[in-house]
Order: sequence, then C-alpha cells, then structure tokens
Amino acid sequence: MPNRIALAYSGGLDTSCIIPWLLENHPGCEVIAVVGDVGQDDDALSTVEAKALRTGAAQCHIVDLKREFIEDFAFPTLIAGSLYESRYLLGTAIARPILARAQVDVALQTGCDALAHGCTGKGNDQVRFESAYAALAPELQVIAPWRTWKLRGREDLLAYLRTHNIPTTASAEKIYSRDANLWHISHEGGELEDPWNAPPEDIWMRTCSPQSAPALPEDVMIGFENGRPRSIDGQPMAGDELVAALNQRAGRHGIGRVDLIENRLVGMKSRGCYETPGGTVLYEALQGLTQLVLDHKTVQLREWLGARFADAVYNGEWFTPQREILWAAIEKMAERLTGDIVVRMHRGTATTIKRRSENSLFSQEFATFSADEVYNQQHAEGFIRLYSLPSRIAALKANQPQGVSH
Amino acid sequence: MPNRIALAYSGGLDTSCIIPWLLENHPGCEVIAVVGDVGQDDDALSTVEAKALRTGAAQCHIVDLKREFIEDFAFPTLIAGSLYESRYLLGTAIARPILARAQVDVALQTGCDALAHGCTGKGNDQVRFESAYAALAPELQVIAPWRTWKLRGREDLLAYLRTHNIPTTASAEKIYSRDANLWHISHEGGELEDPWNAPPEDIWMRTCSPQSAPALPEDVMIGFENGRPRSIDGQPMAGDELVAALNQRAGRHGIGRVDLIENRLVGMKSRGCYETPGGTVLYEALQGLTQLVLDHKTVQLREWLGARFADAVYNGEWFTPQREILWAAIEKMAERLTGDIVVRMHRGTATTIKRRSENSLFSQEFATFSADEVYNQQHAEGFIRLYSLPSRIAALKANQPQGVSH
Amino acid sequence: MPNRIALAYSGGLDTSCIIPWLLENHPGCEVIAVVGDVGQDDDALSTVEAKALRTGAAQCHIVDLKREFIEDFAFPTLIAGSLYESRYLLGTAIARPILARAQVDVALQTGCDALAHGCTGKGNDQVRFESAYAALAPELQVIAPWRTWKLRGREDLLAYLRTHNIPTTASAEKIYSRDANLWHISHEGGELEDPWNAPPEDIWMRTCSPQSAPALPEDVMIGFENGRPRSIDGQPMAGDELVAALNQRAGRHGIGRVDLIENRLVGMKSRGCYETPGGTVLYEALQGLTQLVLDHKTVQLREWLGARFADAVYNGEWFTPQREILWAAIEKMAERLTGDIVVRMHRGTATTIKRRSENSLFSQEFATFSADEVYNQQHAEGFIRLYSLPSRIAALKANQPQGVSH
Amino acid sequence: MPNRIALAYSGGLDTSCIIPWLLENHPGCEVIAVVGDVGQDDDALSTVEAKALRTGAAQCHIVDLKREFIEDFAFPTLIAGSLYESRYLLGTAIARPILARAQVDVALQTGCDALAHGCTGKGNDQVRFESAYAALAPELQVIAPWRTWKLRGREDLLAYLRTHNIPTTASAEKIYSRDANLWHISHEGGELEDPWNAPPEDIWMRTCSPQSAPALPEDVMIGFENGRPRSIDGQPMAGDELVAALNQRAGRHGIGRVDLIENRLVGMKSRGCYETPGGTVLYEALQGLTQLVLDHKTVQLREWLGARFADAVYNGEWFTPQREILWAAIEKMAERLTGDIVVRMHRGTATTIKRRSENSLFSQEFATFSADEVYNQQHAEGFIRLYSLPSRIAALKANQPQGVSH
Repeated sequence: MPNRIALAYSGGLDTSCIIPWLLENHPGCEVIAVVGDVGQDDDALSTVEAKALRTGAAQCHIVDLKREFIEDFAFPTLIAGSLYESRYLLGTAIARPILARAQVDVALQTGCDALAHGCTGKGNDQVRFESAYAALAPELQVIAPWRTWKLRGREDLLAYLRTHNIPTTASAEKIYSRDANLWHISHEGGELEDPWNAPPEDIWMRTCSPQSAPALPEDVMIGFENGRPRSIDGQPMAGDELVAALNQRAGRHGIGRVDLIENRLVGMKSRGCYETPGGTVLYEALQGLTQLVLDHKTVQLREWLGARFADAVYNGEWFTPQREILWAAIEKMAERLTGDIVVRMHRGTATTIKRRSENSLFSQEFATFSADEVYNQQHAEGFIRLYSLPSRIAALKANQPQGVSH
Repeated sequence: MPNRIALAYSGGLDTSCIIPWLLENHPGCEVIAVVGDVGQDDDALSTVEAKALRTGAAQCHIVDLKREFIEDFAFPTLIAGSLYESRYLLGTAIARPILARAQVDVALQTGCDALAHGCTGKGNDQVRFESAYAALAPELQVIAPWRTWKLRGREDLLAYLRTHNIPTTASAEKIYSRDANLWHISHEGGELEDPWNAPPEDIWMRTCSPQSAPALPEDVMIGFENGRPRSIDGQPMAGDELVAALNQRAGRHGIGRVDLIENRLVGMKSRGCYETPGGTVLYEALQGLTQLVLDHKTVQLREWLGARFADAVYNGEWFTPQREILWAAIEKMAERLTGDIVVRMHRGTATTIKRRSENSLFSQEFATFSADEVYNQQHAEGFIRLYSLPSRIAALKANQPQGVSH
Repeated sequence: MPNRIALAYSGGLDTSCIIPWLLENHPGCEVIAVVGDVGQDDDALSTVEAKALRTGAAQCHIVDLKREFIEDFAFPTLIAGSLYESRYLLGTAIARPILARAQVDVALQTGCDALAHGCTGKGNDQVRFESAYAALAPELQVIAPWRTWKLRGREDLLAYLRTHNIPTTASAEKIYSRDANLWHISHEGGELEDPWNAPPEDIWMRTCSPQSAPALPEDVMIGFENGRPRSIDGQPMAGDELVAALNQRAGRHGIGRVDLIENRLVGMKSRGCYETPGGTVLYEALQGLTQLVLDHKTVQLREWLGARFADAVYNGEWFTPQREILWAAIEKMAERLTGDIVVRMHRGTATTIKRRSENSLFSQEFATFSADEVYNQQHAEGFIRLYSLPSRIAALKANQPQGVSH
Repeated sequence: MPNRIALAYSGGLDTSCIIPWLLENHPGCEVIAVVGDVGQDDDALSTVEAKALRTGAAQCHIVDLKREFIEDFAFPTLIAGSLYESRYLLGTAIARPILARAQVDVALQTGCDALAHGCTGKGNDQVRFESAYAALAPELQVIAPWRTWKLRGREDLLAYLRTHNIPTTASAEKIYSRDANLWHISHEGGELEDPWNAPPEDIWMRTCSPQSAPALPEDVMIGFENGRPRSIDGQPMAGDELVAALNQRAGRHGIGRVDLIENRLVGMKSRGCYETPGGTVLYEALQGLTQLVLDHKTVQLREWLGARFADAVYNGEWFTPQREILWAAIEKMAERLTGDIVVRMHRGTATTIKRRSENSLFSQEFATFSADEVYNQQHAEGFIRLYSLPSRIAALKANQPQGVSH
C-alpha cells in the first residue's frame, strides 16, 4: 500500500477525479501533484495549483519544461525527419517521456513510493508513461486508475466528483478528446470515429481554414545549425520562442493539419486529427536543406533512421538503448545540416522555395554541360557498364549452352 | 561497325541530329527510329514519322504504350508508395524501361545489331536505357552519341543540322529541359540552376497556380482494387483513361507540383520541378486506404519496400531480380487494398477526407470506451509490463551490487 | 464456461495434468486431445492415445504433420536463411503454428468452444499458440492452465496426479526442459541457467561430441530446386525423408549444436542449447548456392528479408500479412536457387567445398585478366569517378572560399 | 604531367614494375614510395626500402600503422559484427583506407601532385584506394598503371623488368594472388577459379588443417571494454599485440578459414579464401557478449548497422558521411559491451562457452518459475491479447457481414 503517490496532474476532469480516488482507495496516503508545463495552455496553469490542493493534493509542483521540451524532444524528431506512419509529427508522443521524467524527479525528491497517471487503458500514453517509469524508477509502484476503477466516461467522472463534494466547471458534453502542448494539439473522438466522415471544421483550434487564409502568400526564412532551427528571418531565437512565433505565422495560413488513421501500439486503429503549424514548416524547411547537403546514401540512412526513431518515440521507448543509438547516428548525420531555407506559406501549403548552405553539394557547373575537371562524360560509359554488369552476365549466361556453366 | 541501328527517337532536336550523325559516322548503316507513345504529346506524334524519315531514318515504328505504361509501370510505383528521396513520383524513371523494352523489341524484329539513344552523359536516363539493354539484349552494341560527339548544346545541334541541310523548326532559346508522359512532366535548367531561386511561375504546364485555382474545393472518389485505381466517382476506367481524367481535374486545382534537389545515380545533385497532378491525388488516396487496412508491421514493411523500390526504379534496375523480388512482396501486400477514398482537391492540396473498405481494421467499438469482448483494459497492464521488461531489468540490474551479476 | 475443449496434447507430464485439471475446473466439459506428429518421438506416439484416454480425454486425434512441417514450415525458414539473433534455426518456433492449426482444425471439426495448451507463462510458445488461435479461430476461448493454476514445477504436478489417482512414469528429477521434432531438439534449464557454465556434454542427444566424431571427413551433395532441398547425393527424396537421413549423417559428425542466450518475445533473456544437425548442413549448402547465383543487391535483400522472417516466425506471427508478404518476396528470390552443393562434414564443422548451378553468375573469364567483351578495365576508371563523385564534390567544396557556395 | 608521384608500394612484383614504368611514362618525374606497415610480413619490410630505391624511387617512406590498423579499422568492424555477404571479415577492405590515408599524408608532406597504386582494373581495391583519394586529396591526379599499360600477367611483368635491367627474385609461377596483414590473409586464383573445386590444402598459410589440429580443445578468455578486446586470459594487451597473440593460438587449432564466392563492387563474382584466426575468435566472443547484454531491439539494430557497415567498408566508403554515421550508432551501441567471454578452440571451431558481464540482462530468477516481482505470469495473457489484436480484429472482421464495415 503506497504512502505517497506522485500523480502526473493536468487539472482536467480525469486527474481531478484521480486525486480523491487515490486518497479514498489508499487510505492514509498523500498525493503529490506534478504538473509539467510543456506549453499546453497558459490560462489553465495559473489556477492548477489551487485546483490540485482543493481536490486533496498534499503538494503541487509545477515544472517549466517548455524549452527542454522543444530543444531536446521536439527538435530531435524534426532532425530525424520522423513521421509515424509517414504522417504524424509525434506531438503527444514526445511530451510523455519528458513529463514522466519530471514526475519521477519530483517523486524521488519528495520520497514517493508510487507513481500514478490519468491515461486510459486503450491508448498509447499509458505505455509511454509506464515504460519511462520502468527505465527511470522501476522500484516505484505504478497506479493506473483508468484500468482499475469502474468509471467509464465523463458522466461517471462528474457523478464521482458530485458524490465527493468536489466542485468542477467541467461539462458533460465535451465532444473531442484533446492533448495540447507547444508543438501540437491533437483531437480525437466524436464524428471522427467514423472514417467516412470528413473532419468537421470546428475541431481545429490552431490553424485557420485554408479557405479563409490570406489570399497572398508569406515567405519565412529558417536558419539551421546542425539541423537545429536557430533563427527566423535572420533573428536568432531559442527553440521554444521560435516554435511559438512560427505557430502564429503558420497557423494564420492554415498550415499543419493532419487527419490520420493510425495503428496504436496496443494493436487497434484510431483516428487522430493533429495541428502542428510551426513544426510542419520546420519539417519542410529541413527537408529542403537535406536535399542540398546530403548525398544519396546519407538520405537513405536518414529515411531509415527517421522511421525507426519515429516508431521508438511513438512506442514509448525514449529511455532505451535503441532510441539512444538511433539518436547518436542522427546527431552525427545532422552535423552538416547548416544553412538557410525560405518556405512559402499559403492556404494550407508550406513549400521550400529557396535553399542555401555552406555544405551544399549542388553545383551548377557539375550538373550542366560545361566542360569541367570533376566530371567527364566518358566516365559514364564505364560506370554504366560496371553498374549493369550483373544484368549483363545473367543475360549472357541465360543465352549460353548450359553444360559449361558452374 | 553496326549495320542497322535502332534509335529511341522522340522527334526533338537531339534525336533529329542523331539520325544524320549515326549515318555519317557509321557509313552504310541504316537507322530504325522507334517512338514509344507513353502519352508525351499528341501533336508531336502526328508528325514524328515524317520527321524521322526526312532526317534519314530507314523506318519509323510508333508503338502505343500508354495503357501498359500506366498499368504496369506507374501503378506499381503507386502501390509501393514509392517516392524517390521522399518526394519524386518517378515519372521519368518509369518511362525509361518500357521505352527501352519497346526499342529492343523492334531492334530484334528488324535485325538490328546496335541500339542508340539521345540521353546526355550526365544524367540518369543513359543508365536506365543501357541497364535495360544489358538485361534484355546484351549482345547488341550501344551507341550514346552525347558521350561521343563534340556537340555541346542547342546551338551546336542547330549548326550541325544547318551544315547537313536538314530543316528544323527548333529555336536556340529553349530555356528548360523537359520530359513529358501521361504520368508527369519534368522541368530542369534555366533559373532553376540556382537553388536560391524560387521556381518561376511560367515553368509549370499542367497545373494552374494554387493562387488562381478555384475558390471552392472539389471532391473526387477513387475506387481501388488490390491497390489499383479502378474507378473515379464510381465510374470504372482503364488506367490510362483514369490518369488522363484525373490529370485534368487535379491540374485545375494546382495539385502535384514538386520542386526538388535530388541526388542523381551518377553522383551529382540536380534540381527538377515535376508536375504529377493525377498521380499525386492517387498517392494521397492510396495512403488513406492503407491507413484503414494495414496493421503497423505491414505499414513498416510497405514503407521499407517502397523506399527500396523507388531506388531500384530511379536507378534503372527495372529488369533485375531485386526489382522483381520487391514487387512480389508489394503485390502480396496490396491484396487487401480494396476500398473507396474521397480526396478533397483545393488550391494545391489533395487531402483524404473519407475512407471505406471491406478490409478495414478500424472499429469504433474497439477504440473507444465501450465494454467489448475484443479488448479488456486489464490486458494493457500485462502488455506494458512485458513490453517494458528489458528496461525494467536493465534498471534493476544497474541498481544492484555488481559482484553477483553475470 | 466451455463445453468441449481441444487440447494441444503431448503425453508429457504437463499435459497429463492438464486433462484432469480441465475436467475438474470446467465441470461437465469434454477434452479432445490433439497430437500433432512433427517427428518428435516415435516411441511416445505409439502410446499417446491410450495415455490421453486414460487420463480423461474424450477423444484423441493424432495428425501426421511431418512432411508438411518440413516442406511448408522448415524449408521456408531455410530458404529465407532465417536465423533468430543470428544463430537459432527456429526449430521450436516453426512447430507451433502448424500444431496450432491442426488443433484448430480438430476443434472446429469436433465442435469445440475452447482451445487449451500446456505452455508456461514465461515463454514464447504461449504467444505462438495464442497468436495462431487469434488469427484462425478468434471466436474460441483460450485456456492456459500454467498461467492460472497454482502448480509450480514437476513436484507439484506429480502430487496433483497422485491426488487424482492418475498413474505416471514421470520422475521428479528431470533436469532439462526439452522440445523435439524432426528439425531440431532444444534443451533448457539445469546448469544452463548460469551463463558462466559451459553446456555439459550430457545434454546433447542428436549429435555426438566433435571430439569423438570420426577422424575422417565425409562429403554430402545436396541438390536444390528453387531453394528447396530435393536430393542427397543425387537421390531424390521428400523433405521429411531428406531431413531424417541428413540428421543421421550430420549428427555422427557432431554438427548442428548451438548454445545461445536469446531475447524472448516476452522481454526476458533465456539460454537454449539446440541441435539441428541436418538443418545446419542445409543452411550451409544453401548459403554456398546463393554465393554462386545471387547478385549483391539480391544478397542484401535476402539478408534483410531473412532477418525479418526470423523475427516474424520467432514471435508467433506465422498467420499474419507481414509473414506472408515476406514469404512472397523470399519465394521469388528463390526461383534461381537451383544447383548442387557439396558440403564437407567433419568434427562439428559443415563447410561448402563445391558449388555448381545453371544460374551461376561466376565466370572465370570475367574475373581474371583475359581480354573479354564483357568487362573492359578502362571502364573501371569511369565507374570509380562517378561512384566517388559525392566525396570528391564535398572535398572540393570544403576547400573552396565559402561566399560563393549555395 | 605530374612532377612527383606518391606510390602505394609493397615491394612485390607489380609495384616493382610500376616505379620504372612511371619514370618512363612521365619523363622527369620523381616517385616517392610509401609503404604502410599493417603487419603484412616482417621479412619483406626489412628490405623494402633498398628495393624501392634500387628500382628508381627517389624516396621510400615506411609508416608503422599496425596499432592504428587494429584499433581504428579492424576493431570497429568487429564491434559492428560486420561480415560482408554474411561471411567475410573484411581483412583486405579495412587495410585500404588506412594505407591510402598514409599515402596521401606523405604525398602532401613531400609536395606530390599525383598518387599511384598497383591495383588491377577488375578488383575492389582500386575503388577503395581512389575513393579515399577523392575524399582526402581530390586535387591530386590518380595514376592506375594496371588500367593503362599493356602488361597482362606475371610473365609480362618479368619481361618488362628484364628489358629495363632491373633484377628480381620473383618467379613466373606464383599460383595464388595473396594479400596479408595483421588481421588476415587472402588467397585468390589458381584452382579456386573453378567453384566445383574444393580449396587445396596447400593454400592455407596461417591455420593448420582442422584434421591435424591438437586433439584436445583449448579455452581462451577475452576481456572486452565497450566492445573493444582489451585482455587475453586476464592479461591486458594493446590491440595489435592481442591480435598477434590470438592469431598464433587460434591458428594452431585451424580456426578462421573462409571459402567464399562473393560479389565485387565492380559487378562480377570472385572467389576468395580467407584466414582470420584471431579475428574469428574475437567475433565469436563478442557475439557471445552481445547475447548477454543487448535487448532484442538493440540486437536487430546491431545486425542492420553491421550489415550496412560491412557494405560501406567493402565498397571503399570509409571516408564518407554514411560510414561515419553508422559508426556513431555502433559506438553508442558498444557502450554496454563490457565483460568476459571464454571461447573454446578446437579443430576448426571457436565456440563461446562462458559469458559474464556487469551489464548482463540475463537473470536466472526472471527466466524460471520462481515467484518474483519483475514478472507475473498473469501479465502474459494481457501481452498476448494486445500483441495479437490486429490478427484478432482482422479475423473477426472477415467473419462479419460486410455492409457494416468501413
């Protein structure tokens, strides 16, 4: 029976119920609420401590993780070019390990013997939180109320709070399930549950409709150093500031919407609509830079590493050797990704239009007709002969009388 | 010294020079012009035979390859989801093997002892043609005039024609180098040679500008069977008709532009602007269908196979065991890709909005809260414990006194 | 509550307990014992039916699966070159899906509503059996007594049988846990549990010690068609006969022992000692044939496909799209694997010494100095220049004043 | 026309001819002989300088590369587990980049304007040398006499030396082409050119025949730190000393022979017989250590990275981003590869028999029946249900009336 439980706390309806439920079901225990600020919502943060204490928490720790979240969790997935199932920019997946680590840190500092979270039993987030716990503090007990209690939806939760005389402003009618941070916001549920429904326009919160976006395009220049975005239009910025600024500009142009049916780690399909306006511009820009700088074998390697990295991040394997090994390779690959990229934003599209880099492998002279020292057209014949030699040998052998060949 | 040469003939300036050049440099030989119709340009085709004969060809064979081109070369890359360096839909790369095969067929039928093509010595196409030759007719000699002659650009070619009294309507001022077929058109050269230049609006030929596209979106429903597009808005069509129709509709919405700096097989970077309006809608639609139907391991497999297939196609390896092995896997994967997808086309964007399939793995009941037989939330705990077991063991071992462990 | 349960029955101590336990815990039910003969042990099979009925089974079905097991389960892993974690020839893993399928077949024929197996809760086999059930008969209930009952080892089982008055010849002192079939036998437990112990000589059952093997080597010629072993020393044989014969010959030379610490799917490490004498010779021989016949890109592909196939098989994914897609590719790859290979067997080693194939790509003339039409040494210069062009460009660019490059 | 040429010099017949040939064909030039000592043959080294000067070299530089060769070129391929086409330990391939680099260093120090080597035009080594040149000194001219001159075999070379009055002890009858260094020796040519010939016993130089090896096995303990071999039987040694000692011990037991038909980069097949006695023991030992220490996903990653690294090394891509990126990942992976492994050497076999490591993930308690905190057998049910959920959903859907599914 745990004495002190660190709870990953958001102040939403779910975790508001969890505090009294933990106290009720583990008599004598204390609950330490841990709020990781990854840029989810500034308004909510201002009242979250009061809320936690009011619903029974012994302490509430608010940890500002915004810069670290962007620099150490979002940018690595960007540098890797990681898109889960070719589409999803991993906005929720990267928030889980940093939140879990902050929670474990507080738990160890405050002498907790258990960790609790508010994730449901059907999603990926429970795996992400608990895999992080397993790697960082395997000795602590894990409590996952959604897998244990009998409550089955918002109405049950509201009833539970009423029974326990805990006031709430939450309503029973919330249609979509959402997760927000500085990098993205996700939307699930409601009409999205039918794949034959188009996403309703009113679900989107950070991007305007491409139809109502400005008629004129807007260009933005991103400066990269070793794969990391470091400036916008020549002005240096820290990662979190840069993403916040870009979210505003890209959101105005309706950029960064994704409507995806994806495979969850727990074996079922689900549909998510995601908005990642700034991140989408950054992915496009970095893609433009890789085109200029990486040779084909490195491009292949980045694609493979990025896909593996995406899976590792999505599947809650942040704190594993696999993820660290992939990152070592990606970080090495990124050493040459320095340069400036101009992206044109317009009515839902973000398109690289200009690229420059001190590491560019592009050379007008090499690619065109002019005589040069580097490339002699005669060389091509030899190249082709050897490149296609196995085909030639196989074809010649196939024409040959068979007795002689072994 | 060859007696009869089959030439891959287009009627353009390059191959117009090649006929007299071949005759001049291989005295006594005959040139058989072979024109493969992959939908490049209907006007040009009507006069191409006269042109070939006028410039010295002994015969001109025009072969209609449009349906086979779409069904057997374009659709396989679509089904594989193949994008070279994550972007290029391979429109030129897939045309080369079918053209080379038609050329070899004519060559063997007409008793040729050599094959010639008009590709330059710096590009991919020479590799694609000659690799196909090596696999299909290794006994025939290969003649690549651009790697041999001293001519170095359009002015040289025009001068050569003048010297040989061959009339031409070609002008010296052509800015862009283009390749067109039913699937796509490519543009290279001119201002594009500077990566810091945005592509000028006037290069685009099959897509209107997203800015001048219709204000209202248009939806189109694609019906797939085993990964192959089989109908538009419920109306069955053969592949070439379907692509032609979709090119019109998608082009009007400014869909399918790509501006890419890519690594050529011959080791240098080049920039290409591509228009693939119909193909882009089909890629998006099929992606939407895979989301509904494929489990994650199959998605991973498709991504890997598609990337390999893209490289094989780009690199001229169509007629190799590698390409055939990849295709066997992709074709098997595609067996479940049957269903309907609605894509919304609007100002440069093509977005899946509705999906349905008899093979759908999506199920509202499985993914949401409702009690069901398939998924019990208690199962998740066991899953997570085993999934994260290596992390747990490693973390526990790391905390342990070291003497005992081996 | 199930009425009729199909049990994967072996006649060993575990499943001997499971029959009475099922009857006791599911009052009124019938147990249908299903014995799949994959070549495990001829003696045991002769008495297994009597044993099953004596311990309470209503029926006992013995299904001869030997030929199908070798041709359709063992040979595919051989053709793929699949070795789990680079070492294990998958002998137990391939037996599970065919046994599960036979069990499901009997269950459906006899109107069962449940499936039971005797696998423990810590191993891979439970996953393999139950994944097959999920794919083939998801509507049937699954009963896994080892995860439910309180029995915890051989002594508990013997006590249980005594309590229920069921005679047994099993003893409490069995040291090793074994699994046998025509392809292999595995050994676990006992002294092997300490990785710092060498495997004791007395665990091995199908291979003599290399030290006591014959002083003189013995050669054997394997004939392959499309990757499938079809003859020994020129004499055609069905797969099961061929493997049985080769097991005898190779076992005499001490061939096919593997001592491996492996990662189980369920997240923990375990140590297994495996004997696969005939299979080891076949792997070596087929490797020798691929060397002669496959070009490098196909070799790469086979290595990748084989590793994925190994994981799929090990992890119980036989009846999944992933496994079928991989197999489609592997089967295509195997089309050229026809030829004869001589393997020398000697004191624990099996080494290819002679290879011949109608599809050989090896050619003495191509590889040596003699002048030939196929390969001109001048071609190599062009090949190298283009092959190393990205390095050259990068090095030249790095030496260049930076202002000009973009 | 070059003024001063740095020649990769061995003192063998080929490079003995190349010095006078260079002087003859580039009148007025000087030749700087560069001998990299990678442990090829101590006797030859003692006379090589005199030989170089006698045949016309202006200078001869002998560079001791043995330690660096083992530590920085051989051990990385070992740590990666790299085997080209699953078999070849890359002994020649790793020697080329270090030799080329030493040659370039001397060339730049002595003001050379050209680089020359003695590789033939049909092999891999020319690509390896010239790719290194392209990356390290693209501005220097490359001279490859074997691709230029008319000499076509040993008799031609001997005749050339006679004509130029240069004495030699070389004979015309050398059967095999060999390459030796501290890591390995290779043998090509002669009877090996027929794949249906077993390798004759007399080609082997560093390993005794398994038949004549000692009757009794010998055990050796290798100590690894971060994947690097650091001690033998507890005695610390530098890499080159360790490999030299192990070559002696393993060679006595007939360990490390490989007979392989492989695909050369230049598109043809060739057969090589390789002896890598010490390296083979080290590969086996490190494999044993990885079994104890790496989780499955890391094992998969190592297999994939190792295969890519093998190709990169074989193909002469040592000095490329791709190789460096792969190495960054491999080095990270190796951080946990610390421990001791005992390998039993006996009549051609090297087998891990004992393993221990402070980072072991093996735990007797976890893998066996005993109750424990880490693994609860009930967890397995949940794991299996979720692991096989896609199969279950697909199977259930397939049984369902179709109208409802989308």
